[in-house]
Amino acid sequence: MENLSNSVIFPKGDKATSAYFTGNVWVQMLVTEEVFNCPVYNVTFEPKARTKWHSHPGGQILLVTGGKGYYQEEGKPAQSLQEGDVVKIPPNVKHWHGASKESWFVHVGISTNPNLGNAEWHGPVTEEEYQ
Amino acid sequence: MENLSNSVIFPKGDKATSAYFTGNVWVQMLVTEEVFNCPVYNVTFEPKARTKWHSHPGGQILLVTGGKGYYQEEGKPAQSLQEGDVVKIPPNVKHWHGASKESWFVHVGISTNPNLGNAEWHGPVTEEEYQ
Repeated sequence: MENLSNSVIFPKGDKATSAYFTGNVWVQMLVTEEVFNCPVYNVTFEPKARTKWHSHPGGQILLVTGGKGYYQEEGKPAQSLQEGDVVKIPPNVKHWHGASKESWFVHVGISTNPNLGNAEWHGPVTEEEYQ
Repeated sequence: MENLSNSVIFPKGDKATSAYFTGNVWVQMLVTEEVFNCPVYNVTFEPKARTKWHSHPGGQILLVTGGKGYYQEEGKPAQSLQEGDVVKIPPNVKHWHGASKESWFVHVGISTNPNLGNAEWHGPVTEEEYQ
């Protein structure tokens, strides 16, 4: 199992609520000041941990800083992700992201156009879908 | 001298124009799609390389991913930067950022509120100022 300590650049932060995630996930806000109009945060997933299905009215950008994970849009195959990958999630596209079975996964997230509203959350990514 | 190869996560890209920088600097755009309203780019500075003095009408965020560098706002002391630091540059604040004398320096940059206009560029950071 890839060692998380090799992949952390930004602070790990606190364990996140299970309302949005399956498994253990940590979130550290990096930028919250309203003047920037650009929330930025670091998200760390333990192996098999993942977001629930969700969408962003203004879109989202993921900058992968360590580990191995997946990104999947509804109705499409999952894409493998690793350090250095950039994911551009268009507005209102239902998707999930999270760690692989064997590795931790760390990404910076940017919520773009936050004035268009908060993320909309749907159900969990089932074990069957994750497999 | 810190080895650049230990600090790169995102692509290095092409050597940037000397209109904006002193020394050798490489820039790789990561996000340019207008829908996100959030240009994101990776910037790599060789030792002693730095931006010219500049300001952003909409502000800028720096996410330091490797090496050692500096950030200085006009009229204030320079701050040392290293992996994991986040710099929040308010709109219209004249500043520069770049590498230390002994180390390469790599950061992701985010231009916030790009609708407010492009960066305004001023003169170079002189050797005397840099020292």
